[in-house]
Amino acid sequence: MSADPLPPTIEWADGFVRLIDQRRLPGELVLLECRSVDELCEAIRTLAVRGAPALGAAGAMGVALAAATGEPLEDAADRLRATRPTAVNLAWGVSRALAAADPAAEAVRIAAEDVERNRRLGAHGAELLPVDARVLTHCNAGSLACVGYGTALGVIRAAHEAGRRPSVWVDETRPVLQGARLTAWELQRLGIPCTLVADVMAGSLMASGDVDAVVVGADRIAANGDVANKIGTYGLAVLARHHGVPFYVAAPVSTLDPACPDGAAIPVERRPDEEVAALAGVPLAPPGIAVENRAFDVTPADLVTAYVTEEGVARAPNDLPL
Amino acid sequence: MSADPLPPTIEWADGFVRLIDQRRLPGELVLLECRSVDELCEAIRTLAVRGAPALGAAGAMGVALAAATGEPLEDAADRLRATRPTAVNLAWGVSRALAAADPAAEAVRIAAEDVERNRRLGAHGAELLPVDARVLTHCNAGSLACVGYGTALGVIRAAHEAGRRPSVWVDETRPVLQGARLTAWELQRLGIPCTLVADVMAGSLMASGDVDAVVVGADRIAANGDVANKIGTYGLAVLARHHGVPFYVAAPVSTLDPACPDGAAIPVERRPDEEVAALAGVPLAPPGIAVENRAFDVTPADLVTAYVTEEGVARAPNDLPL
Repeated sequence: MSADPLPPTIEWADGFVRLIDQRRLPGELVLLECRSVDELCEAIRTLAVRGAPALGAAGAMGVALAAATGEPLEDAADRLRATRPTAVNLAWGVSRALAAADPAAEAVRIAAEDVERNRRLGAHGAELLPVDARVLTHCNAGSLACVGYGTALGVIRAAHEAGRRPSVWVDETRPVLQGARLTAWELQRLGIPCTLVADVMAGSLMASGDVDAVVVGADRIAANGDVANKIGTYGLAVLARHHGVPFYVAAPVSTLDPACPDGAAIPVERRPDEEVAALAGVPLAPPGIAVENRAFDVTPADLVTAYVTEEGVARAPNDLPL
Repeated sequence: MSADPLPPTIEWADGFVRLIDQRRLPGELVLLECRSVDELCEAIRTLAVRGAPALGAAGAMGVALAAATGEPLEDAADRLRATRPTAVNLAWGVSRALAAADPAAEAVRIAAEDVERNRRLGAHGAELLPVDARVLTHCNAGSLACVGYGTALGVIRAAHEAGRRPSVWVDETRPVLQGARLTAWELQRLGIPCTLVADVMAGSLMASGDVDAVVVGADRIAANGDVANKIGTYGLAVLARHHGVPFYVAAPVSTLDPACPDGAAIPVERRPDEEVAALAGVPLAPPGIAVENRAFDVTPADLVTAYVTEEGVARAPNDLPL
């Protein structure tokens, strides 16, 4: 097998954390080293590392960092969990490392499991896509959202590796542009045909019959199957239903939150106004404008055609391995 | 009556055309002078002036420019019409000036009519909005899209002037950000409360019960009531229907195209890749990425709750003054 065109998103490097600085993509591939819990928290808050499965590994590595630097573990765990409220995987990774005798070994195990799990998830999901499928995806649920391989993009990658020739409509994903910056970059490196669109184009693409499936990731899935994911996901789900296009959610079992009864109980993070009102320091709107910047939305279970996890395909919330 | 806080978008200045250079907003209010048909065509193509009703006036003033500079009128008319294919008003303004004995006088008449017409349109539409309505709008169908006052924003402005206290969710409107740059600027100058959102947030806002009505403009309305408007409008209409939120289209009668049987017959302009892949010269995506950039989409008549024109409110396409 040839070398993976996508390096690990985050790894434990014997005493510190090394991660791809996603704030610098697609301009340049730069590795960032975090040598304290504070540095890692800052990397998480500023989206140098993001994506629910990657945050699971980051949470565990944060506890390992605290252990390595002699910080109190519980205090470090609290600060890590507070960085991003919506993704349940972050708290899950923190808890797993806290409960382990050797947090660093546990963090390494979580990272290794992630890639293997995503390959299994991808193989299950690939079978849902027809040959030559034109798949629309939102945000980045790719290798960069995980330790490697990806969840939603893992499904597309597995279909590509199986010779099913998928092509991808990449939603740019305002305001932070994870689609334009990260998903397009990954797909280019993987040699998977893709076309960038503004988020507002999804309705037109579906109406003209150019979308065969929507595949997205998830930041948290409630016990009833409601899905929290990047803002804009819910609108896509409504459009997909209106056009009879299947809407698939690809996420590892660690994204399921049995303690959360439904979408209304999922905390939705608000992020800074500047993400919407400016870009790379350039103002996009008049000074003083009020901004509402919800980072996530909730898609009700009844709009989800199927969930893809490493355990298989669930056609209904009751079939999820909760 | 106090002075209008919004200067005329475009005016005939005795031998040349003076217009607000909308490429410079919201940073600075700069007036651009076009002294030849070529200069005006370039201003239209690069969106220094845009918006269906404003393009009607621009088309007529272009013919007046040709007459003033001694260019062949028919050739100028063809070049003007070719600059933007979707808005029917551009061709309408060109034709009116061509048919007039004095194109300049006709252009001045069209401009004056526009503001008066929009005030009538606004008064009709304002009655559709409940008191304290939270209105979502897309793109800019404001004073800057017209000679003055606005169509969709004219409805909101008339409600504001009538003491009905509307507030506005302003879709930023990727890729060209007419919402963030122009609509937010207008509403600030008018003192109407507004909040900027990324386009992807509409579904979440409707799901949380924070939208009482959607009001948009139109670039062309076909004989069956299908509406071509800024890309993303159709997705809003589907979301509005899903949530039981009324969806209103505000446009002057000159936007109606009886010669166009339905939405499928409306040409949809494709615009340059760079509008999506870069912003203010900053690349947003990896080099070489393919882009699909449809500037408009078509909303089927059955998703439109009512049309607002200067003649009144039409609850069904058959009631339109075609």
